[in-house]
Amino acid sequence: MIVNNTNLRVRYGETDKMGYVYYGIFAEYYEVGRTELMREFGLTYKEIEKNGIMLPVVSMNIKYLKPAFYDDFLTIKTILEKVPSIKIEFKYEIYNQNNELLNLGETTLVFVDEKTRKPRKAPEDFILDLKRKINN
Amino acid sequence: MIVNNTNLRVRYGETDKMGYVYYGIFAEYYEVGRTELMREFGLTYKEIEKNGIMLPVVSMNIKYLKPAFYDDFLTIKTILEKVPSIKIEFKYEIYNQNNELLNLGETTLVFVDEKTRKPRKAPEDFILDLKRKINN
Amino acid sequence: MIVNNTNLRVRYGETDKMGYVYYGIFAEYYEVGRTELMREFGLTYKEIEKNGIMLPVVSMNIKYLKPAFYDDFLTIKTILEKVPSIKIEFKYEIYNQNNELLNLGETTLVFVDEKTRKPRKAPEDFILDLKRKINN
Amino acid sequence: MIVNNTNLRVRYGETDKMGYVYYGIFAEYYEVGRTELMREFGLTYKEIEKNGIMLPVVSMNIKYLKPAFYDDFLTIKTILEKVPSIKIEFKYEIYNQNNELLNLGETTLVFVDEKTRKPRKAPEDFILDLKRKINN
Repeated sequence: MIVNNTNLRVRYGETDKMGYVYYGIFAEYYEVGRTELMREFGLTYKEIEKNGIMLPVVSMNIKYLKPAFYDDFLTIKTILEKVPSIKIEFKYEIYNQNNELLNLGETTLVFVDEKTRKPRKAPEDFILDLKRKINN
Repeated sequence: MIVNNTNLRVRYGETDKMGYVYYGIFAEYYEVGRTELMREFGLTYKEIEKNGIMLPVVSMNIKYLKPAFYDDFLTIKTILEKVPSIKIEFKYEIYNQNNELLNLGETTLVFVDEKTRKPRKAPEDFILDLKRKINN
Repeated sequence: MIVNNTNLRVRYGETDKMGYVYYGIFAEYYEVGRTELMREFGLTYKEIEKNGIMLPVVSMNIKYLKPAFYDDFLTIKTILEKVPSIKIEFKYEIYNQNNELLNLGETTLVFVDEKTRKPRKAPEDFILDLKRKINN
Repeated sequence: MIVNNTNLRVRYGETDKMGYVYYGIFAEYYEVGRTELMREFGLTYKEIEKNGIMLPVVSMNIKYLKPAFYDDFLTIKTILEKVPSIKIEFKYEIYNQNNELLNLGETTLVFVDEKTRKPRKAPEDFILDLKRKINN
């Protein structure tokens, strides 16, 4: 299991008239989380794309427990449990500065060849590195 | 069962560098869908809020089947199957101009008293109207 | 002078905790306005891009007079005064359902060759059509 | 003159199909900049609002020089030159990780009484502190 914690501060424009962070914004926060997990692991999403691979999201599930507010300093905990093949699954937990769990999410992404736009396996060395880390 | 179809055109700013509509944007499209379903039914979300009731989203699930592209003319099909009590559940299907199903979503919202910020029942006359329509 | 009026309804996610449409969102509304002006004129921005031309924005100025609120039904008035060469300038006026002027904007965009990423002239027939219309 | 430098990393959802950060997103980046300038100065925008004061933006001007790309690590330089009265003016410069100037912006905000929604002077102690700092 690989875990990454990354922080961000809620922007004014991300709130809605309820005063809460708009429910769709968490998709963006989750993206920040998985990007940082991969970066910590030596692989940037940017490089993946340079190698002609796309990673569109094929499913997302969110349970909203408590609202996030303007200027909250959030922790995005991103979890990778399984070695990816064609798919890669991330889980997320978002906490505020009082360590309250705000929401739980999961996304599944698929490795796609940029030219053919068809699914393909994750890059070999990425899988190998992850296997080593997850099994340790 | 109550069904509403509403249309919108994909904006440039809603796409990402893959050329697809960013996966988090569909939360906003779904919101447009349920707003129009309620408006057609004589109840605007704006009025609900004026009556001191909030409707935060407590869960969202999305299955992404095909991408939406810039300038696509989308149909958001919003479905209300059950008479709401404290919760109200909407299902969504998004189609493009070629009638291709792009994604499937569902959201659950909770009626909350604005002052106490505690869950409460949906407004009585709203429930009655829906019961009449759903059972017909 | 070419004028286009197009409508849109304010989405919940576009408001901020003040209850106003977030000030950055109008960039998106202006984009909708100029897209519809060009479409009415027989040229979609999508086609421009297919012809290997990009149109990045090089300047934007906005004067905010009154706020827009959730569920407001807005009119975006887009104005093209000058025949474009390398640059194309649009002006915007946003009105609400009570015909109140909410803000005034202007953007300048530059025609750029997608491959060289260097400025280039607007497509010939586009200029000719605009000349005919603007001078009439 | 008060200057604040703050950093942020470009998110995937902030790019558009050109591969550039969408031109409207910089309004959000500027907001992050002025929020951090004020925070460094001991005054959070959150506290201002708690004291019944709103700070809507009344004008924004942007000159876009070079694009920002996905995953760029940006520096937002925010500058406050004048002691605010009813208005407060910020200037912005955005740089990428190669120290290239990407765009220049300026925004004017107005102190507004939340209840009356009328303009009012900036809080006294805020002005005093700023006077001391700007004049030093």
